[in-house]
Amino acid sequence: MPDQGLTAHALSCSLRRTGAGEPSSSEKMVEDIFAALARHGVATGHDRVADFDVKPGVGSDEGPGDDWPALRRRVLAADIFVLALPIWMGQPSSIAKRVLERMDAFLGEADDRQRMPPLGKVALVAVVGNEDGAHACHAACFQALSDVGFTIPPNAGIYWVGEAMGRVNYVDLPEPPDNVASAIELAVSNAVALARALKAHPYPGV
Amino acid sequence: MPDQGLTAHALSCSLRRTGAGEPSSSEKMVEDIFAALARHGVATGHDRVADFDVKPGVGSDEGPGDDWPALRRRVLAADIFVLALPIWMGQPSSIAKRVLERMDAFLGEADDRQRMPPLGKVALVAVVGNEDGAHACHAACFQALSDVGFTIPPNAGIYWVGEAMGRVNYVDLPEPPDNVASAIELAVSNAVALARALKAHPYPGV
Amino acid sequence: MPDQGLTAHALSCSLRRTGAGEPSSSEKMVEDIFAALARHGVATGHDRVADFDVKPGVGSDEGPGDDWPALRRRVLAADIFVLALPIWMGQPSSIAKRVLERMDAFLGEADDRQRMPPLGKVALVAVVGNEDGAHACHAACFQALSDVGFTIPPNAGIYWVGEAMGRVNYVDLPEPPDNVASAIELAVSNAVALARALKAHPYPGV
Amino acid sequence: MPDQGLTAHALSCSLRRTGAGEPSSSEKMVEDIFAALARHGVATGHDRVADFDVKPGVGSDEGPGDDWPALRRRVLAADIFVLALPIWMGQPSSIAKRVLERMDAFLGEADDRQRMPPLGKVALVAVVGNEDGAHACHAACFQALSDVGFTIPPNAGIYWVGEAMGRVNYVDLPEPPDNVASAIELAVSNAVALARALKAHPYPGV
Repeated sequence: MPDQGLTAHALSCSLRRTGAGEPSSSEKMVEDIFAALARHGVATGHDRVADFDVKPGVGSDEGPGDDWPALRRRVLAADIFVLALPIWMGQPSSIAKRVLERMDAFLGEADDRQRMPPLGKVALVAVVGNEDGAHACHAACFQALSDVGFTIPPNAGIYWVGEAMGRVNYVDLPEPPDNVASAIELAVSNAVALARALKAHPYPGV
Repeated sequence: MPDQGLTAHALSCSLRRTGAGEPSSSEKMVEDIFAALARHGVATGHDRVADFDVKPGVGSDEGPGDDWPALRRRVLAADIFVLALPIWMGQPSSIAKRVLERMDAFLGEADDRQRMPPLGKVALVAVVGNEDGAHACHAACFQALSDVGFTIPPNAGIYWVGEAMGRVNYVDLPEPPDNVASAIELAVSNAVALARALKAHPYPGV
Repeated sequence: MPDQGLTAHALSCSLRRTGAGEPSSSEKMVEDIFAALARHGVATGHDRVADFDVKPGVGSDEGPGDDWPALRRRVLAADIFVLALPIWMGQPSSIAKRVLERMDAFLGEADDRQRMPPLGKVALVAVVGNEDGAHACHAACFQALSDVGFTIPPNAGIYWVGEAMGRVNYVDLPEPPDNVASAIELAVSNAVALARALKAHPYPGV
Repeated sequence: MPDQGLTAHALSCSLRRTGAGEPSSSEKMVEDIFAALARHGVATGHDRVADFDVKPGVGSDEGPGDDWPALRRRVLAADIFVLALPIWMGQPSSIAKRVLERMDAFLGEADDRQRMPPLGKVALVAVVGNEDGAHACHAACFQALSDVGFTIPPNAGIYWVGEAMGRVNYVDLPEPPDNVASAIELAVSNAVALARALKAHPYPGV
């Protein structure tokens, strides 16, 4: 039975704007994850962060021209957050780092029971690279996302990377390799089950 | 109302055996977490890993003399896993790394619905150091623990570290600083609520 | 005898522009390092990256309005590169990540003996935070900087962080704590000696 | 002209003892690096750490039965240190962590000019895995090795990892892929040139 009430929102953190050059592997991975979410009846939304002006800073609104408040609203309106990002230099892209940095503000926005805005929401982290770095990206993101109140389901780190010092990109593959497709199914199944469990049993805070 | 059915098991990863030299800051942190868990009615158990012979390897049983099978059983019998570790060189102790490495075997022990042994269990990571490195330890541990099937609650990274290049240890403090005490309360509250939610709504697997 | 020929250039990676709000701890740390470099006769230059428009991307020139080419030139003109950055969420600031990402281009700019543009140059990494994360920042930066051709001297990671979950910033301290002052002296002495050694004995490449 | 005076010592950090099961990919990588070092006239020595009893601790001698003092002597007698390790869970093996942890003692063994025992020595880090994690291992090791006094040459991170979630090991390859062979040549050339430069121009300390 589809879970009609659940929604997911993805931020993909390619360094390139929509339409600028080659298609985005991060975005392709989001599409593959969204297909799996749709099979669970989850409604999805997506923004490519490079299309927006997300100002540097650690507040939730960094003033005129800052697009973060709109992205923040869409993330917080959903039950499941998908952070999708490319690896550069073995590490998360600077745009993914900017997103996490802006979420630092959640630490100061807890209510009087220490409940931060993302409490009860579930996060998945999807990483693509032509080569090595996925686990390090998962690690950095899980730490930051747990710090600000997201819950991390089992097997929440989805990824594809090519062989060492490679050139092939995820978007170049004719279809997701079987092990990636399986990992997506598992991560999505866990995320959906967890989101449902947390809706039924909200965190009470302290 | 106390949650009488829940249990927690901690592995503390000090480099020193019980009784060898100074008291363990990791163990002191476990005691402080256990006091908070007790207030939620959670029964607790603890092993200091350095007291055991955990063989190198990535199987669940590395043969004669390997103490991991016993530790593994106690971890998997509990609803909440507390991994407590000291920072050395800004990174998790080698004994904590050994524990995570032995959990690599869980990847190969999933059932036919891809459910690994720790599925439905919740993990907290408690880090102590006389100086810097806690977030990096959280990151490395959350990634490994999510990979093998644990769920990471919000604010799951508990820690205390002294000022840069310091010498004071957690065990030297007369009592936990207020911000550490608050962080323990929050992490424990979230872990207990999450464990309860997952008991009521088990992960179905794929 | 002062080493009159040596020069250093720092990029500080605060999230705030010059003049926007409180003074920058990263910049204060750069000043303290520069004072030590001056005692070795090293001439210094500094840019606060937030004052420039460094476009996302992994090329050395990302087109009209990109300020990276100018910063890149100043970094490559110096013998010693000082990367100074604040910790956010236990990790390097997004602006530091942007700088490293733009240096990815050096990988494709090696000459026919595999010598990348920063070959023979020495890098120091200075990290400030009101709390934990310095070693993780050093780790991420050393890896990226070695990958693109910098040499990392011994004790190259300079840092100050306050006690866990603290609020005091480096810029708030009346003067550098003794252990930070000593660490700066040591890192600078090593960097200067190494830069001098590499000038006398350039890397031949393959 | 061969550099007859230079020596290198490798510690390989496979989880398995010599003769226990399948051959070691870490050791195979060491052999490939040693072949390159030999072409520069560098004499080499190697220990597989799992064949020794390296006690937990952060002293240079942890008492009766501790094999670290012998390994430590061989590392410090060489000009170039090669740390070779497998990835487990996206991170350095627990045996590699143990080695780094034992080197923590170098921090307390500086002379009155703050020169730690490895000063003037050069470190390379070679990582093998059937999948992702090499850059994270480089990062963790470079940070620890710089902290205790080693110098990190440019392009010091050698690695091979297979495609995401793979099963092929480095030792299974008929010969090193071209890009790995090139990376070894470059890293070794840089390490040898740097070791030579540092012999001619020793660090003076503070």
